Amino acid sequence: MNNFTFHVSTDIRFGKDRLNELPEVLNTYGKHVLLVYGGGSIKKNGLYDTIMQQLTENKNQVTELSGVDPNPRIETVAAGAQLCREHQIDVILAVGGGSVIDCSKVIAGAARSDQEPWDLVLNRSYQGSAIPLVTILTLAATGSEMNRGAVISNLETKQKLGVHGPNFLPKVSFLDPTTTFSVSRYQTAAGSADIISHLIENYFSTTADTDVQDGVAEGLMKAVIKNLPIALDTPDDYDARANLMWASTLALNGLTGSGKGGAWSCHPMEHELSAFYDITHGIGLAILTPRWMLHVLNEDTAPKLARFAREVFGVQESVPEIAARMGIQKLYDFFISCGIPMTLPEVGIENEQHFEEMAQQAVAFSSISKNAYVPLSVEDVIAIYQDASTPSSYM
Amino acid sequence: MNNFTFHVSTDIRFGKDRLNELPEVLNTYGKHVLLVYGGGSIKKNGLYDTIMQQLTENKNQVTELSGVDPNPRIETVAAGAQLCREHQIDVILAVGGGSVIDCSKVIAGAARSDQEPWDLVLNRSYQGSAIPLVTILTLAATGSEMNRGAVISNLETKQKLGVHGPNFLPKVSFLDPTTTFSVSRYQTAAGSADIISHLIENYFSTTADTDVQDGVAEGLMKAVIKNLPIALDTPDDYDARANLMWASTLALNGLTGSGKGGAWSCHPMEHELSAFYDITHGIGLAILTPRWMLHVLNEDTAPKLARFAREVFGVQESVPEIAARMGIQKLYDFFISCGIPMTLPEVGIENEQHFEEMAQQAVAFSSISKNAYVPLSVEDVIAIYQDASTPSSYM
Repeated sequence: MNNFTFHVSTDIRFGKDRLNELPEVLNTYGKHVLLVYGGGSIKKNGLYDTIMQQLTENKNQVTELSGVDPNPRIETVAAGAQLCREHQIDVILAVGGGSVIDCSKVIAGAARSDQEPWDLVLNRSYQGSAIPLVTILTLAATGSEMNRGAVISNLETKQKLGVHGPNFLPKVSFLDPTTTFSVSRYQTAAGSADIISHLIENYFSTTADTDVQDGVAEGLMKAVIKNLPIALDTPDDYDARANLMWASTLALNGLTGSGKGGAWSCHPMEHELSAFYDITHGIGLAILTPRWMLHVLNEDTAPKLARFAREVFGVQESVPEIAARMGIQKLYDFFISCGIPMTLPEVGIENEQHFEEMAQQAVAFSSISKNAYVPLSVEDVIAIYQDASTPSSYM
Repeated sequence: MNNFTFHVSTDIRFGKDRLNELPEVLNTYGKHVLLVYGGGSIKKNGLYDTIMQQLTENKNQVTELSGVDPNPRIETVAAGAQLCREHQIDVILAVGGGSVIDCSKVIAGAARSDQEPWDLVLNRSYQGSAIPLVTILTLAATGSEMNRGAVISNLETKQKLGVHGPNFLPKVSFLDPTTTFSVSRYQTAAGSADIISHLIENYFSTTADTDVQDGVAEGLMKAVIKNLPIALDTPDDYDARANLMWASTLALNGLTGSGKGGAWSCHPMEHELSAFYDITHGIGLAILTPRWMLHVLNEDTAPKLARFAREVFGVQESVPEIAARMGIQKLYDFFISCGIPMTLPEVGIENEQHFEEMAQQAVAFSSISKNAYVPLSVEDVIAIYQDASTPSSYM
């Protein structure tokens, strides 16, 4: 196990009817609030009204930034930072999924920085101060509500990049499973694929003998695999939504990654799909993950892939390579059963036109060619994109 | 899933050679340090010298409180609180296992409180301020290094009681697996039994549909069951010690208990064994847990006990009650294989003289008779103590 620091001080308020605690939380930081949200689903489901009533009664001065895109854009970050300066914002209240929270994190930093927002992202690490951030999560997916990372897109340069900062960590996050009842089947499945991907990225690392982290990851994967079908069938099943929501947070708060080394594999490859084609992040990950697993399956990796198959999907086969293939098939079939389109053409990527450029960027903007679980060259990435262009079978 | 707040801000510094960070950490709080430790094992293994060198170079003014007992006594708490007042202590540095850390937590509160120390414990909850606490963990067991609880004994009144306080949470905890290399076989096994017991207490709760918490608990149990035999065979196996250490912390930092309801069962029963006979806490838990499982096995509880058997021990049996019994047997056999004495006479409790009084106290000082997984009467507790008096078989 590698050395690590685990210091995740976000105050999680989990459950129904917790928003009456919001005024007290915001008052810790001040009265001037920047309210950040996305396309307006919070206006349809009543959450916006609930929040505004709390803020009005609490005599907050509210500035709004709405319309944050699913792959949040650097232009939105710049606009938000400008609003923070103009209105002397004391605290940012992000209401939405990972995109809204990610966007808010970089706004929080950019508002207090002399750097141009895109330069801040290009640095990949921001050590400066940030405006305090409070979140109200409405989608179980990215885990951004309890970590220090953010992903921002620049459609002009066709780049989608992650940036981390110690002060990006939300101070308080409200997790109310009922806010996810109205999330569509497609977005629910995509969010869960994102959770599973985070767990898999950490699970297959270059560090051996990390049974604690791996056991936690297996437990979280099983919780998602059990509860996602329930939530798809019964969107207002509270416990299913609660399990998905809490799994999303724990999947990427450091718990399964701390003490392990190496670069992630599928996220850099997916970021290029999103950057070039603006597809749904979780869907891209679901499409790529089984193909990546097959691509890296060899004598050395078979035992860990077989452990995944046995512990997560209950595969009984004793020969590691066969068990591994059975596990990959089960993951693929699980995604299919949840209604996820499992080929690139199904999400509008119908030819190989950009595969080479995307593969080059995936390698250039990450370290997958150097220290991934199995290092991937530009050719490897192209092969995985090609494999993802048609339906697959692993047995 | 129940509503919960999860806010565990302890800064964990995990790994080898992290103690060079100690001066910077202590300087956050001040120069006057109360150094609390136990029976002197840290003098034998060199840890004391390493710490004192750091503190001397950092120009700390150090007051020492040594000799904290395995079941820490209220008299030691009172003495520590007095030292803090006399020497205007800024920060307490607890070096040891759960006993030293628990004792330090209550010292930290008592030093800033007008209450008599034992009154503070009897209240079971302390909402006042406390001196900041930094810990250096040397035993994987109680999880005290990352939570707000403490257990203190009063041998005069034959009581061993838990007390919680928001300000008992350690600010920073150093977890260096190498500090546990010299822990004896017996204490290593006892510590791991304590970890498993914490996970089992949370696992069997009155709240259903908590797959995230239960999946995490299963993963941590499997990590302990895999790594304890390695650590017993090879005491300086770094990864085995690292997995046990990190499992101990995560087993009781709120991760597996938040969102679940009900009272613990085996801890209140064990606390009476320790209070009356001063036995090793983890050993008492190992002895009681399989007996308790059998005692509560019925048609309603069989499915969860069977899940435990299948997920933790890989039992394949499909009939729930049989699977449950197989799981209980496997847990019992595991403890035996680790050298744990599994009957009360083997730890010096040779007759039933105090069973009734102990059972009455277990019920009086906890809520096991009201809201445990299966509520337990005085008669139930006596029956479990009686069953623990001879070797058991569950199949």
